[in-house]
Amino acid sequence: MQTTETYREDFNAYLEKQTGKREPVQLYEPMSYMLSLGGKRLRPVLTLFAADALGGDYRNALPAAMALELFHNFSLVHDDIMDAAPLRRGQLTVHRKWDVNTGILSGDAMLICSYRFFEGYEPGLFKSLLQLFSKTALEVCEGQQYDVDFENQESVSMEQYFHMIRCKTAVLLGACMKAGALVAGSAAPVQQAAYDFGCYLGTAFQLQDDYLDAFGDPSSFGKQPGGDIIENKKTFLYIKSRELADAAGVKELEHLFSIRPQDPDAKIRAVMDIYESSGARIATREEIARYTKLAFGRLKEMSLDATAEAGFRDFGEALTERIT
Amino acid sequence: MQTTETYREDFNAYLEKQTGKREPVQLYEPMSYMLSLGGKRLRPVLTLFAADALGGDYRNALPAAMALELFHNFSLVHDDIMDAAPLRRGQLTVHRKWDVNTGILSGDAMLICSYRFFEGYEPGLFKSLLQLFSKTALEVCEGQQYDVDFENQESVSMEQYFHMIRCKTAVLLGACMKAGALVAGSAAPVQQAAYDFGCYLGTAFQLQDDYLDAFGDPSSFGKQPGGDIIENKKTFLYIKSRELADAAGVKELEHLFSIRPQDPDAKIRAVMDIYESSGARIATREEIARYTKLAFGRLKEMSLDATAEAGFRDFGEALTERIT
Repeated sequence: MQTTETYREDFNAYLEKQTGKREPVQLYEPMSYMLSLGGKRLRPVLTLFAADALGGDYRNALPAAMALELFHNFSLVHDDIMDAAPLRRGQLTVHRKWDVNTGILSGDAMLICSYRFFEGYEPGLFKSLLQLFSKTALEVCEGQQYDVDFENQESVSMEQYFHMIRCKTAVLLGACMKAGALVAGSAAPVQQAAYDFGCYLGTAFQLQDDYLDAFGDPSSFGKQPGGDIIENKKTFLYIKSRELADAAGVKELEHLFSIRPQDPDAKIRAVMDIYESSGARIATREEIARYTKLAFGRLKEMSLDATAEAGFRDFGEALTERIT
Repeated sequence: MQTTETYREDFNAYLEKQTGKREPVQLYEPMSYMLSLGGKRLRPVLTLFAADALGGDYRNALPAAMALELFHNFSLVHDDIMDAAPLRRGQLTVHRKWDVNTGILSGDAMLICSYRFFEGYEPGLFKSLLQLFSKTALEVCEGQQYDVDFENQESVSMEQYFHMIRCKTAVLLGACMKAGALVAGSAAPVQQAAYDFGCYLGTAFQLQDDYLDAFGDPSSFGKQPGGDIIENKKTFLYIKSRELADAAGVKELEHLFSIRPQDPDAKIRAVMDIYESSGARIATREEIARYTKLAFGRLKEMSLDATAEAGFRDFGEALTERIT
């Protein structure tokens, strides 16, 4: 067993070797640029970790890990266009550094290149990995579409919200875990447990992201706080507040989510007060803990040794207990 | 052996069954819409024809044909956004009927869905088809990028032009032929001959398209004539004219390709006069004939029976001898 830091370093070294200069430059440069912005490499680390913990040679999982990380970056490039986002990890987004057409086309190329990284696997494994990958990729698109739909939808049920974040965020983490299990040659029930672990953890991770957007410490969270509130996004905090608040609170919240004031500070403060007084903030922390626990429950079914299980727990806790 | 009309009908019947109502509607409706706009179904017909002619059951090639047609439609959706095209086959483009974000995201979903159509093939064939498909898809992106690059490039060599149309148009027809050969279980040299036939025919087809854009009969061509001239596109006609015209002709042509007059009629007429007087128009027809002949030469290496060979010749001639 290696540490997650080793997986990350080995992945970054592998990635470095994959992104040489290719023609046409305008198509491939944005790909290298996006990958060079870094990030925590959560997804490839999960793949390598799962392959290792399940008895495989984790270096055999590097191409799969690369495909999944590249897919994630493709989705960010296209999402950033759709959200008209100027910055990504503190740097210009692809469509701002180049232009929208470059973002569309180089994003397409990234998606196709991610498929190509699986080509070194033998046909049986190749097909299993590709089926997992395509199914997941399509779900991520569906999740993004639901997210867009919710903006123009008056009310979003808790069930709809969970389905959206499952598609948009959770299944990719599930797929990263399962890809590691596939490379390790694990049996179907172990693959499924690995997948479920990733999905539950991914759900906790997205809830945490929603939470931090409102209650995170801006200096460590690295984003504009209250972004979701400014955008009137129907997050878990919002939907839960509508469930828990009294009639006056619900009415005020609905009003606040129907306006877009020039200076959003007062609105952000008012919404956060309702999130707190209704009990939605606390309920969010409980929901994060619940999903983290569900994830850890699946570790039991993966027949891991004690070190590996502790490693996954540490990884999960680090991911979902960042209160700020 | 069936007629190309039968392949087209069987393909359309198969396609009809694949495109039911799926959620989220906004993601999948544009896919059905694009596919419902019809078109000649050249690409899937080539796949089914090749599978049949090479001794396979052409119905086994339907999923591969579907993947290739869906990929083609994906590329049209994203290209139409990049070209800001309002119409496609006389109907609104996806980004005009819906919006740009819908075009980006449903295009992404179309690309992923096209991969999924191969999933019914056994692992060995699946992998061969996928490798062909991904390689081709990436080349199509590269071709599109070169096409964009050429707009801002002062001069384009004949070699660059042929590389661009090979990527953008020809390799997909090559891949359609090779996919049919793969499904039929053909030997590698036959696969290669089928691929080359498609590529040569695709090159002739693109040259023909350039030709018709200037010299086609608008009533039967179905597009605004002179569109490439209005857009200052560096087609074969333009590059060849620069090679063949005298110094004064070259200078005039360069001037005409540096302006964008409000009323383009005089410009179109002047450019067409140079295409004619320089001999570029005739040279284009000769080049189309040359590539068609190269394509037909590859039929010999496919060991086809006489009916099949005649069928491919008829198909090729119908495609490249539409003078109007």
